[in-house]
Amino acid sequence: MNILVTGAAGFLGRRLIEALLQRGTLTDRQGTERPISRIVGFDVVPLSGIDDGRVQAVCGDIADPQVLEGLIDTRTDSIFHLAAVVSSQAEQDFELGMRINFSATQALLERVRALGTCPRWVMTSSVAVFGGRLPAQVEDGQVWAPQSSYGTQKAMNDLLLADYSRRGFVDGRSLRMPTIVVRPGKPNRAASSFASGIIREPLNGQDSVCPVPLDTRLWLMSPMQAINNLILGHELPGARLNEGRVINLPGLSITVAEMIDALRRTAGDEVAGRIRLESDPAIERIVASWPGSFTARYAKSLGFTADHDFADVIGQFIAEYPPQTD
Amino acid sequence: MNILVTGAAGFLGRRLIEALLQRGTLTDRQGTERPISRIVGFDVVPLSGIDDGRVQAVCGDIADPQVLEGLIDTRTDSIFHLAAVVSSQAEQDFELGMRINFSATQALLERVRALGTCPRWVMTSSVAVFGGRLPAQVEDGQVWAPQSSYGTQKAMNDLLLADYSRRGFVDGRSLRMPTIVVRPGKPNRAASSFASGIIREPLNGQDSVCPVPLDTRLWLMSPMQAINNLILGHELPGARLNEGRVINLPGLSITVAEMIDALRRTAGDEVAGRIRLESDPAIERIVASWPGSFTARYAKSLGFTADHDFADVIGQFIAEYPPQTD
Repeated sequence: MNILVTGAAGFLGRRLIEALLQRGTLTDRQGTERPISRIVGFDVVPLSGIDDGRVQAVCGDIADPQVLEGLIDTRTDSIFHLAAVVSSQAEQDFELGMRINFSATQALLERVRALGTCPRWVMTSSVAVFGGRLPAQVEDGQVWAPQSSYGTQKAMNDLLLADYSRRGFVDGRSLRMPTIVVRPGKPNRAASSFASGIIREPLNGQDSVCPVPLDTRLWLMSPMQAINNLILGHELPGARLNEGRVINLPGLSITVAEMIDALRRTAGDEVAGRIRLESDPAIERIVASWPGSFTARYAKSLGFTADHDFADVIGQFIAEYPPQTD
Repeated sequence: MNILVTGAAGFLGRRLIEALLQRGTLTDRQGTERPISRIVGFDVVPLSGIDDGRVQAVCGDIADPQVLEGLIDTRTDSIFHLAAVVSSQAEQDFELGMRINFSATQALLERVRALGTCPRWVMTSSVAVFGGRLPAQVEDGQVWAPQSSYGTQKAMNDLLLADYSRRGFVDGRSLRMPTIVVRPGKPNRAASSFASGIIREPLNGQDSVCPVPLDTRLWLMSPMQAINNLILGHELPGARLNEGRVINLPGLSITVAEMIDALRRTAGDEVAGRIRLESDPAIERIVASWPGSFTARYAKSLGFTADHDFADVIGQFIAEYPPQTD
């Protein structure tokens, strides 16, 4: 199996590559499980630190058609398209967001169409496609009404992928990801960055700002669960996707207050006390427009899964990234 | 008022221009009703037969950025964007459909964004954005699941227009039009072309083929109603569009059998007898994926209206285009 991962140097991309290497096989277009012989890890920044002969790191601009031609050829069996500009950044820089989040996806799909090979394609979409008046729990039939350019771009990708799949240009699957928590490392320019920050920073002995009200309800998934679901998304036979190529994933529905309570129970009052509430209207507006709960009936019928509870999610993070408080 | 109409030589475009000329005024961005001083009628084929000093016919390729620059400038107050490749044609020629139905819309919106003038923008969308499992009557919150490239392209336009409007680049309104019946003239390559054909051809003494089953339910609107709604769509103040820029219009919900009954009651057995049932699976698949009824609550709250009944619609056609049976 010859695989392309875009956004390979990002948090999910890197973890996905590691998981694929460990797994060693993927199912091909004919439904046969085959060894992974090559993973092209593409990103705008260098992918380093993965030392495996099967991985080839490629660096470049994903919106450059010439770059894309070199990335995908007739031998490419599967594409995991994760590259994106995050939500707050796409809101601040409209042109950059359109170019990376939408035009690059369109160009990648066009490259695949030109080749005529119909590879499997797994893509991350987002709950940011929803907005406006929403029920307490969102059904799969809920209309999309993005309140951000990021959500708009992701919804346009979903529509394109569904049509390219219907026409047989690609065998696509778009997974509407919950907010991934807890991410390691530094805060980023996603509007949801705080959701990892309020767990990660206090555990590492640092203060953290929560920019949204305590009763804000979020839809979350751990990194490990996200990777498992991405791989399941690839492995499902196309014939099972009878309700369409865009899948609202299951997740954990939890308020910020409940997240902080879980942190307190796991790590104590002192750690939980490092969170300071400080409203940021720009972030609050975007985050408040996202649904806090989904039925995810279709995804569950396909075998996609959610984390058990948020204490597990915190435990997973502590085990993988032991707190560094000095 | 300085107005651009794209698709001006098409059936709706021409009628819209005539209606605007007769009306003589439109509301500007500041909410003031002003005389219409100029209408640029743009199309790929020449707009002829409208003899009015206020109308300037321009012919060209709408997907050519240089053409667009000449079409829209800082004096453009309002844009009616009607140009499109119809559904069956967009299904048969994927590249043409993407170029005209989506890329040209994106390029027009980019031109408007570059100018920074935030003109009013009225666009025709379609019930073809819906598909898959649908309730008997579609609510405004129904998810989009296009089963054609045409529907996909229209849904992507809707998303783009909503985001450009939210960001203040344009003051957009996208009207999800029912199937417009009865169109005069020749059949076209819309999957819905038969819906006019089974009324128009028999009235003109010609045989007509109905390619879908008699119990197929359609969502219809007369040309006169469509033009009234397009102008209302322009005149509504942006502040009233609190549920978004994409509006499912009201219509008539009627089966093909009921359409033929109405034709029989209006024009007699001999005329209705000129319709022959002959299944066309490609058309049937596309038409069957469209909803046959909507609540259209949001549109009704904004003052959009439907035709009274189908006999009225036939009567309107006969009055405007007296049957020519020899």
